[in-house]
Amino acid sequence: MLGLRISRYNKNGICERQNLALSFPLTKLYNHNYRDLLFGHGMTSYSVAFEPSGKQNYIEVGKTVFEAAQSMGVELKTLCGGRQICGKCKVKFEEGFFPKFGIYSKREHLSPPREGELRYLGQAAIADGYRLSCAATILGDLVIFVPEESRAIKEVLAKTATAKPVLLKPAIRNCYVELPPPSLGDTRSDWERLSEELARNFNLIALDIDYYAMRSLSNALRSGDWKVTVTTWTEHHVIKVKPGLVERSFGLAIDIGTTTLAAYLCDLSTGQIIATRSVLNPQVSYGEDIISRITYVTDSLDGLNQLNNIIMETLNSMVFNLASEAGITAEDIDEATVVGNTAMHHIFLKLDPQYLGRSPFTSTIRHSLDIKARDIGFKINPVANVHVMPIEASFVGADNVAAIISEEPYNQDEMVLIIDIGTNGELVLGNRQRLISASCATGPAFEGANINFGMRASSGAIEKIAINPKTYDVRFKVIGDVYWSHRMPRLKACGICGSGIIDAVAEMLHAKIIKPSGTFNKNIPSPRLLCDREEPEFVIAWPYETTLDQEITISQGDVRAVQLAKGALLAGAKILMKRMNIERLDKVILAGAFGLHIDKEKAMAIGLFPNLKLSQVYSVGNAAGEGARLALLNVDKRSEAAEIARRVEYVELSTDPSFTEEFVKAMTFPTPKNN
Amino acid sequence: MLGLRISRYNKNGICERQNLALSFPLTKLYNHNYRDLLFGHGMTSYSVAFEPSGKQNYIEVGKTVFEAAQSMGVELKTLCGGRQICGKCKVKFEEGFFPKFGIYSKREHLSPPREGELRYLGQAAIADGYRLSCAATILGDLVIFVPEESRAIKEVLAKTATAKPVLLKPAIRNCYVELPPPSLGDTRSDWERLSEELARNFNLIALDIDYYAMRSLSNALRSGDWKVTVTTWTEHHVIKVKPGLVERSFGLAIDIGTTTLAAYLCDLSTGQIIATRSVLNPQVSYGEDIISRITYVTDSLDGLNQLNNIIMETLNSMVFNLASEAGITAEDIDEATVVGNTAMHHIFLKLDPQYLGRSPFTSTIRHSLDIKARDIGFKINPVANVHVMPIEASFVGADNVAAIISEEPYNQDEMVLIIDIGTNGELVLGNRQRLISASCATGPAFEGANINFGMRASSGAIEKIAINPKTYDVRFKVIGDVYWSHRMPRLKACGICGSGIIDAVAEMLHAKIIKPSGTFNKNIPSPRLLCDREEPEFVIAWPYETTLDQEITISQGDVRAVQLAKGALLAGAKILMKRMNIERLDKVILAGAFGLHIDKEKAMAIGLFPNLKLSQVYSVGNAAGEGARLALLNVDKRSEAAEIARRVEYVELSTDPSFTEEFVKAMTFPTPKNN
Repeated sequence: MLGLRISRYNKNGICERQNLALSFPLTKLYNHNYRDLLFGHGMTSYSVAFEPSGKQNYIEVGKTVFEAAQSMGVELKTLCGGRQICGKCKVKFEEGFFPKFGIYSKREHLSPPREGELRYLGQAAIADGYRLSCAATILGDLVIFVPEESRAIKEVLAKTATAKPVLLKPAIRNCYVELPPPSLGDTRSDWERLSEELARNFNLIALDIDYYAMRSLSNALRSGDWKVTVTTWTEHHVIKVKPGLVERSFGLAIDIGTTTLAAYLCDLSTGQIIATRSVLNPQVSYGEDIISRITYVTDSLDGLNQLNNIIMETLNSMVFNLASEAGITAEDIDEATVVGNTAMHHIFLKLDPQYLGRSPFTSTIRHSLDIKARDIGFKINPVANVHVMPIEASFVGADNVAAIISEEPYNQDEMVLIIDIGTNGELVLGNRQRLISASCATGPAFEGANINFGMRASSGAIEKIAINPKTYDVRFKVIGDVYWSHRMPRLKACGICGSGIIDAVAEMLHAKIIKPSGTFNKNIPSPRLLCDREEPEFVIAWPYETTLDQEITISQGDVRAVQLAKGALLAGAKILMKRMNIERLDKVILAGAFGLHIDKEKAMAIGLFPNLKLSQVYSVGNAAGEGARLALLNVDKRSEAAEIARRVEYVELSTDPSFTEEFVKAMTFPTPKNN
Repeated sequence: MLGLRISRYNKNGICERQNLALSFPLTKLYNHNYRDLLFGHGMTSYSVAFEPSGKQNYIEVGKTVFEAAQSMGVELKTLCGGRQICGKCKVKFEEGFFPKFGIYSKREHLSPPREGELRYLGQAAIADGYRLSCAATILGDLVIFVPEESRAIKEVLAKTATAKPVLLKPAIRNCYVELPPPSLGDTRSDWERLSEELARNFNLIALDIDYYAMRSLSNALRSGDWKVTVTTWTEHHVIKVKPGLVERSFGLAIDIGTTTLAAYLCDLSTGQIIATRSVLNPQVSYGEDIISRITYVTDSLDGLNQLNNIIMETLNSMVFNLASEAGITAEDIDEATVVGNTAMHHIFLKLDPQYLGRSPFTSTIRHSLDIKARDIGFKINPVANVHVMPIEASFVGADNVAAIISEEPYNQDEMVLIIDIGTNGELVLGNRQRLISASCATGPAFEGANINFGMRASSGAIEKIAINPKTYDVRFKVIGDVYWSHRMPRLKACGICGSGIIDAVAEMLHAKIIKPSGTFNKNIPSPRLLCDREEPEFVIAWPYETTLDQEITISQGDVRAVQLAKGALLAGAKILMKRMNIERLDKVILAGAFGLHIDKEKAMAIGLFPNLKLSQVYSVGNAAGEGARLALLNVDKRSEAAEIARRVEYVELSTDPSFTEEFVKAMTFPTPKNN
C-alpha cells in the first residue's frame, strides 16, 4: 500500500495495483519495498518514513528532516519555521531495520548534530536519537518518529471506553491501623506487630508481605508514628504500607491493540475513570498486523525483546502522563489489568509468539496470570499485581474475553453476535446456553491500510461521505471539521479513514457507481469517474480540497479490499450461525474503536454482517478496554473471564469445508434497497 | 587498635594504650583516626590501608602501591618484581569514606593510569578502579583492596562445615515428562499440556509456573522434542523447564558472618557438598563489628545500599567461583538457604538495621522468608527461592537458629550450653524441656581485633603457643607451618590470631606471668618481660622471628581485652544457668570458626565457660553454616527452625540485675590447677 502511494508521488508513471487473489496474509501485498522500481532514474534520493503517521516517500539528499516532513504532509510544530531558533520541531531518529517500510535506518544517515541542537536538546537526548528536524539533513534511508509534543496536530483518541456501571469489588483494599509502639516489654518485630493487628481488626489472616513492601515497612511505621495505611491485594498479600491515613487507591486497565494502546486510570475507591489515554502502538513500525510482527520476532535476532521493550516504554510513558494528569505518581498505581489479542498478549509477556503463527497454532499459556509489575519492567508500584486476562484460543485473545465479560452474552436469552473489528476481526455468537467464537483475517482495510488513500482516524481524514445518486456530487466531512455540509468552509483532506471508506463504498453502491459484484459501472455520467487510469477510480475530493495537490479517490482495488474484509467477516458470521443452527440473529454488537465510529446503516448497506433490523445493532466502542476496566474494579469479573475462556468454543474458520463458498458469496454486496 | 599499631611504626615515641573502662561498643577504642597525632612532623605521607588484611600505615608520597604493600607485609603476587611487565599485581582502588581507617579514599589520590596498565587491565577494569600496584603511585589517602588472584598467600578457610548425615528431602524436585505434541485436534496451550501431564504422572496438582520460567517454556518443550525435565519448588511451583532428562539439581547454603562469608554448594540429588568457599566479609571495611556497621548505615546517605551491594557482589562472585569449580553455571543453582546474625540478615535483605541498634531493639521481621533470587539481585537461577531462616530476637539471629537445628539440644535430655563465638558471642542453654538464649558483647578480641598484634586467622598468624613455666621460653606455631617445634625451620610471624591469644593468656597464667586478676607479675626473671614500656609486655616472638622487624608481644592491655571478652561470655552463661535454675552443665558445644580452632583445654584454663570435664566439651565448627545446609537439604528442618525461633526464650543480659556483679567476677581467671 505504501509502495503504491510512493509510486503516485513519484509520477514516473509506474503504477502497481494490489492483487485480488485470496492469499493471506494480506500484508504481503503492501509490505514490499518499492525502492527497486525507482532505481535507475538518476535521482539521489533516500527513502524516509515518519511515524506514527506511517507516511513514506523518497527525499532528495541534503534536505532537512523538517523539509521532508513538510513535503509529505507530516505536520511538525514550529515557531521559527525551521530556522533552528525555537527548538520545537524535535524528532527522534529510529535505528534498525523496519520491514514495514523496507528501510534500514542508521545513525550515519543523518548529518552530525549541530551546535544549536546540542543547546536545545542536550547531549543525552542526542545520544538517544533526538534531533532538531530543521537542523538534521538526510544522508540516507531513515525512519523518523515524531514525538507527541512535536506534532502540530494531535492524534484523535480512538479507543474510549463507554463506562458501564459496575459493582465495586477491587482486589486492592486499604486498612488503616494504629499500633502500640514497641517497648522493652514488647519487642515483637515490626511485621509481627502489624500482622497481628491486621488479623485482630480486619480479620486478615494468613497474610504475607511482599519483599519490596517489607523493605520500607520499618521506616513507614515510625514516620507515621505507628499509624499506617496498609494496602492489601486479594486480602492475603500486603503490597504497601504508608504512614498515616490514605484513602484513595488507583488502578489501571490496559487494552493492547495491534494498532492502538488504550489505558484507563481508575480510582479504586470510587470506581471512576479519572484519566484516559490512547496512543498508537509503536510496534506498527515493525508491521501493521499480527502476522508481520510474529514474522519479525521469528526472523530477527532480538525481535521479541525489541517489540517488548517498545511496548513497555510506551506504556510507561502513558502511565507517567496519566498519573501526572491525575495529580498522582505512577507508583501510586497498585494494580493493572491487561487485555490484548494473543500475539500482543505474548509479546507483552515476552513469550515467544512464533508458535501462534504456525500450525497447529499453540499458545504458551491460556489462563490468566498475576505477575509483579517489577518482573515485567512496568513502572507502576513495583509490588503491584498485573492481572493479564485469559485467552480463548490462539486467535481469540484476552481482548475478546474482555469484550465478552463486558457485553455478557452469557447472561442473555437473545442470540447475540459480537463483532470486534480491530486490525483483526473477532466474532462471538451465542447466549446463556452456548458461546462460539471465530477469528477472521479481515486484514487492516478498515483501519485505512490496503486502501490507496487510506489513513488512520486522525486529523485530516475523511470520516463521512455522502454521494448524491442523481448528480454523483460528493459531500464529505474531515476529522477536525465541526460541520457536515458542502457549503461551509472545510479543512483540507489528506486521506480517508475506515468509517469514510465504508461510507464511500455504501454510497457508491447506493448511487450505482459500483455494482453489487463490486465492479465499477463505467457508464455513469460524471467527471468524478476516472476511467483513463490503470483501473477505474471515483473522485471523492478534488485536488483543491486536499493537502496532497491531487484528487483523493476510491479505486476498483480499494473496493476489492473492502470486499475481502467484509467478506471474511460475513462468511465467519454465517458459518458460526450454521454451527449454532440458527437462521437469524437477535442482536449485533459492533465493538472496537471502529465500531464506535462506523455508521451502522452504511455498514449494513455494504453487508458487513447478516441482515437484521437497524434497531438490533449496537455500537459499544472499545468493549475490550471496558472488560479490562470491569475486571480491575471487580474481582468477580476475573472469575467470569476464567469461566468464559474455558467455555467459549473456538471455531477454526479456515478448516470449515464451506468457508471458501461462504467467502465468495459474502464478497458480493447486498442489492441497494431503495432502488 | 590500628591506630596503636601506627604509633608503633611511627617511632616518634607517641604511644596510645586502650582504655579498660567497661564501655561498649569496644570498637570506639580503636576506630579513631590517629592521623592528627602524626601531623606537624614534616612528613609528606598519606594513610594507606589494605583490605582484606586490614593493614594500615603512613606511606611517603610518590611510592607505588606495590612498595607500600611490601613495606607493610601485604604480600602481592608478582613475577617481574614490580617492573610493570607481568600484570599480576592487580589491585582495586576503593572509593569513599572508610570510618574504620578514618580514610577518605579518592580516585585522584592515585597517579593517572599508565599505558602498561591499560594494556594489562583494559579500560573497563581501570574504570572499575583496578590498577597495577607497581605502576600506580600514591598521591593521597587510599584504601586498596587486594583481589584473591593477586594475593601471594591465600586466606585460610575458616568456616568449614562438619557435615552431619541428613535425611534428603529438598524443596527442589525434578520430574521428567514426555508429552504428546500438539496437533490441530489438540491445541492446548503449552502450559496446559505440561501441567495436565504433571498432575497425571506426578500427582502435582494446583501447580503454577513462575513468570520467568514461563518465558522459556515454549522453546524448551520444542527443543526437547516434547521431552523435558521440570523442576518444582515445594511441589507447587514450576521454576524451570529444561529439554531432555536432567537428573542433578544444585543448592547453596550461605552463612553471612560479620567477618566471614561461607557458602556450601550442594548436590540436591545426593546431599553431598561439592564445593565450599569462605571469604572475608567485605563489609569489614565499614566497621569490624555489627554496631559500627549499623552506625555506618544510619549516618551515611546511602549506607544500606552500599553495604548491601558489596555483600551481594561478593556472594555473586563466590557463586560464580563455586559453580566453576563444580563444572556448572550459577544459573543451575535452584535454591539457597541463608543464615546470619540479625544485622547481617537485615543488611542482606536491604532492611533498615538502625532500629536493631537502638532501644527497644526491634527487628523488621522475625519469621523465615522465601524470596525470588532476582528480587535481591542474587545471580543464581533468577527463579530460585532464597530461604532466609528466621531470627529469634534482635540480638539472636538466624545463625543461632541454624546452630540450634544443627545441634538439636531440643532432642536431648542433657543440659547443653552452645557457645557460638563469632564477632559477637551467642549462648543457648537448654534441653528438650526448655531453651533460653542470650547475646554477649564479647567484642572482636577473639578474632584478633582489640589486641596489639592481633590479626585474623590467615597466613603468618601465630595460632598455637606454649610457654615453659620454668624458663619462660616460648614455642609457637604459625599458620602455614607444618611442624610444631622450636627446632625446626619456621615461617616468620606477623601477628597473633584468636586461638593464639587464648593460648598465650592460658600459658602466661599457667607460668604465673600473669595473676588470676590479670595483672602482670613484674618479678619473673625473663628478658621476655618488658617492663620499661608504657605498660608491661611479654615477648612471644623476637624481632628475628617476625616479618615486622620488632617483637610480637602480649601486653597488659591485651590481657585486659581477653578478660573483657571472656568475662562477658562467662557472665552470660552463669546468668542463663541461674535462670534455668541449674548448677552444672552436662555438655558445652563450641561453635563458630573460632570454636573449631580453639584448644579446648586452654579455653577452659582461662575460664571461657563454666567448669566441667574436658570430655564434656565439643568443638563443632561452623554450626550456623551446617544448619543452613541441613535446611537446604531437608525442608522439615525449616519447620523445626520456625518452631525453635518461636520457642527459644531470649534473655536480655544487660538488664539482668546481677549482670555487673557476674561480669566483674567472671573477668577473674581461674587459679591454675597444677600449682
